[in-house]
This record gives sequence, C-alpha cells and structure tokens, in this order.
Amino acid sequence: MAFDKQITIPEGYTFRPLEKTDYHNNYLDVLRVLTEVGEISESKFNELFDYWKSLSDIFHPHVITNKSGKIVAVGMVLFERKMIHECSIYAHIEDIAVAESEQGNKLGYSMIVGLTNVAKEGGCYKIILDCDPKNIGFYEKCGYTNGGNEMFLKFNA
Amino acid sequence: MAFDKQITIPEGYTFRPLEKTDYHNNYLDVLRVLTEVGEISESKFNELFDYWKSLSDIFHPHVITNKSGKIVAVGMVLFERKMIHECSIYAHIEDIAVAESEQGNKLGYSMIVGLTNVAKEGGCYKIILDCDPKNIGFYEKCGYTNGGNEMFLKFNA
Ligand SMILES: CC(C)(COP(=O)(O)OP(=O)(O)OC[C@H]1O[C@@H](n2cnc3c(N)ncnc32)[C@H](O)[C@@H]1OP(=O)(O)O)[C@@H](O)C(=O)NCCC(=O)NCCS
Ligand SMILES: CC(C)(COP(=O)(O)OP(=O)(O)OC[C@H]1O[C@@H](n2cnc3c(N)ncnc32)[C@H](O)[C@@H]1OP(=O)(O)O)[C@@H](O)C(=O)NCCC(=O)NCCS
Repeated sequence: MAFDKQITIPEGYTFRPLEKTDYHNNYLDVLRVLTEVGEISESKFNELFDYWKSLSDIFHPHVITNKSGKIVAVGMVLFERKMIHECSIYAHIEDIAVAESEQGNKLGYSMIVGLTNVAKEGGCYKIILDCDPKNIGFYEKCGYTNGGNEMFLKFNA
Repeated sequence: MAFDKQITIPEGYTFRPLEKTDYHNNYLDVLRVLTEVGEISESKFNELFDYWKSLSDIFHPHVITNKSGKIVAVGMVLFERKMIHECSIYAHIEDIAVAESEQGNKLGYSMIVGLTNVAKEGGCYKIILDCDPKNIGFYEKCGYTNGGNEMFLKFNA
C-alpha cells in the first residue's frame, strides 16, 4: 500500500522530534497517560535522551506541541535492521499517548501518521505496533491492519 | 512472575549467540522457514552481523546447533531502553524459526526460554513478541501470556 496520509493538527500545533529541554515541558506527564513512569530525575532523562540521540538511526522519539509550545502528545518509532526480506528495516511504534484534555482532536492520528512518515522516509519495509483491543479502531483509522497477537512476560511483577 | 524455566535440548545440541561464520552454516535457510529472506550475499550478511555486533547491548541474535554443529533453530532478542517504568528496558523477541525436520523436539521452546533468560540477565522489565494466533499455545507453554493485538502497515506491498 502506498501510504499517503497527512498530519492534520490545528494551526499552531507542531509535530517534531523530542528535544532535551522537553524534560521541563510536560513530556513525562503526557507519558503518564499511557502507564506508570515513576520519578525520573533530569539527569536520568538526559542520559536516556543522549543514548537515543547517539543512536539516531534507531530511536526516533517525537512530540506534538500546542500553541503555547507545550507537549500534548508523545510517541516513539524505533528502526530494527533485520536479515529477513533481503535485510529490510522494520519499524516499531511504541509508547503513544495524548494528554487527556486534548484527546479526540486528531492528535493521536497525527502522531501515528507522523511516525509512519518517518518510517516511510527511513525506507522501512513494514511498521508494527501492539495495542489494547479497544484501540484497534483507532489504528485502523490511521491505515493499520489487525495482524497477529501480542504475547508478553513480565519479570518479578 | 519469577521466570525459572530451563533450556531442554538434546545432548550435543547448543544454544549460543550467532557467529559470523554462520553464514555458511544454515542460518539463512532456517530463517526461510519463517518467511521470505531472499538472496543475501556474504558481504551483506557480514555488514548486518557487524552492525548487530557493534550494538551488542541492543541486538542479541542466537541459534541452536545440532550434534554436527549445524544450525537448526534461530531467534533474536532486542533490548529497547524506554522512559516508562523508571527508564526500564523492554525486550522484543523477533524472527523465531526451527528447521522443519527438527520441529516438535522442544527446540522452539528452548530458543524462547534461552532468549528469555538473556533478557532476564540483561535486567529487562518485560518481554513482548508478536505471533500468529495459531502459535499462542506454543508461547503459553514457554510461560507467556496473551496480551493485546498486533497492528501493522506494509509500505508499497
Ligand atoms: C488512543 C489515543 C492515542 C487516541 O488519540 P486521540 O487523539 O484521542 O484520537 P484521534 O482524535 O486522533 O482519533 C482519530 C480517529 O480515531 C477514532 N478513535 C479514537 N480512539 C478510538 C478507539 N479507541 N476506537 C475506535 N476509534 C477511535 C476517532 O474517533 C477518530 O475518528 P474520526 O477520524 O472518524 O473522527 C489516545 O486516546 C490516548 O492517548 N489514550 C490513552 C493512552 C493509550 O491508550 N495509548 C495507546 C496505547 S496502544
Ligand atoms: C512455532 C515453532 C517455533 C515451534 O517450535 P517447535 O520446536 O516446533 O516446538 P516445541 O517442540 O519447542 O514445542 C514446545 C511445546 O509447545 C507445543 N506447541 C508447539 N507448537 C504449538 C502450537 N502451534 N500450538 C500449541 N502448542 C504448540 C508443543 O506441543 C510442545 O508442548 P509439550 O511441551 O507439551 O510437548 C516452530 O514450529 C516453527 O519454527 N514454525 C514455523 C515458523 C514460525 O511460525 N515461527 C514463529 C512465528 S510467531
């Protein structure tokens, strides 16, 4: 399929890569909409940010900011170089969240479309992601197809 | 859950990291049990092997060899450093296959258990993988739980 969807964010909103100063700009609070984040010090954030940045062919963390420049949506796309399909690249979409006050305004859609275009420009063969069954309809709106099942194992939980 | 399963391979079989010389040792043929691989030259194999090796905190490709030292099962576990859960590491299991002539002999089980122990020793918080619904029972035998759904998008296919 030729992916040709476009980001549709309100005027003044921006889809862009995560920046180091986003520690002070709501990034962790928006992530908390998705799951537990815990307390992350600025130095821990900076260390992980620098790690992702040093591997910028692999890790592509992004945000959407509102008119005030405040983060209102977050998401990651990760590139995995595989042997299969003649050494193709698979993209994994991870850790998507939209601030509760901004849900239903196409920001989730725009985050997924934005990350999908990052993967397309990166020459990826395929993108995969895991989601709760209740969000299948949302990802279908973004152009995704329901594939297999996610299996997981949590250590010492 | 405390994961305490052990590899149960026949005498003379070995679970070990992929090596560069495995280009000449059935690696690609076993991968072909899973999906299309295409023609991969030795230099393309070496380039990807070196890439994985240079990122050995992330990519952990493994094989199981038989009594003759020939590869009969393959699998990858990939470590992803995330912000959530206080900067935890998630492991992704990818591209599992067992040679057809050796299926049903607990090699698939041993590959999953072996990779799961690599993730456990690497301090991972959780492991996730995607599978065909027909393989859910297999992963349950390996200690995994059925979670959400896999969604995918393939470019220009
Ligand atoms: C799921 C989530 C990312 C969706 O983002 P959003 O900004 O609220 O959704 P959008 O406004 O972009 O929705 C795009 C379209 O999908 C639809 N949609 C949204 N959520 C849906 C759902 N759960 N099921 C079916 N359709 C849904 C919308 O109605 C909209 O349809 P339309 O184009 O016909 O108007 C967001 O609600 C969220 O962060 N939830 C909590 C965290 C989470 O679950 N993350 C994802 C983990 S898999
Ligand atoms: C799926 C696959 C990895 C399983 O490996 P295997 O070596 O054949 O399986 P094992 O012998 O290790 O099976 C372990 C247990 O799971 C069971 N099992 C195997 N496949 C199963 C299935 N599809 N459904 C339910 N149970 C299954 C076995 O019966 C065995 O049970 P037991 O311990 O009670 O005897 C292998 O058949 C394969 O490579 N298939 C083709 C490629 C593929 O599908 N890869 C996985 C993509 S998600």
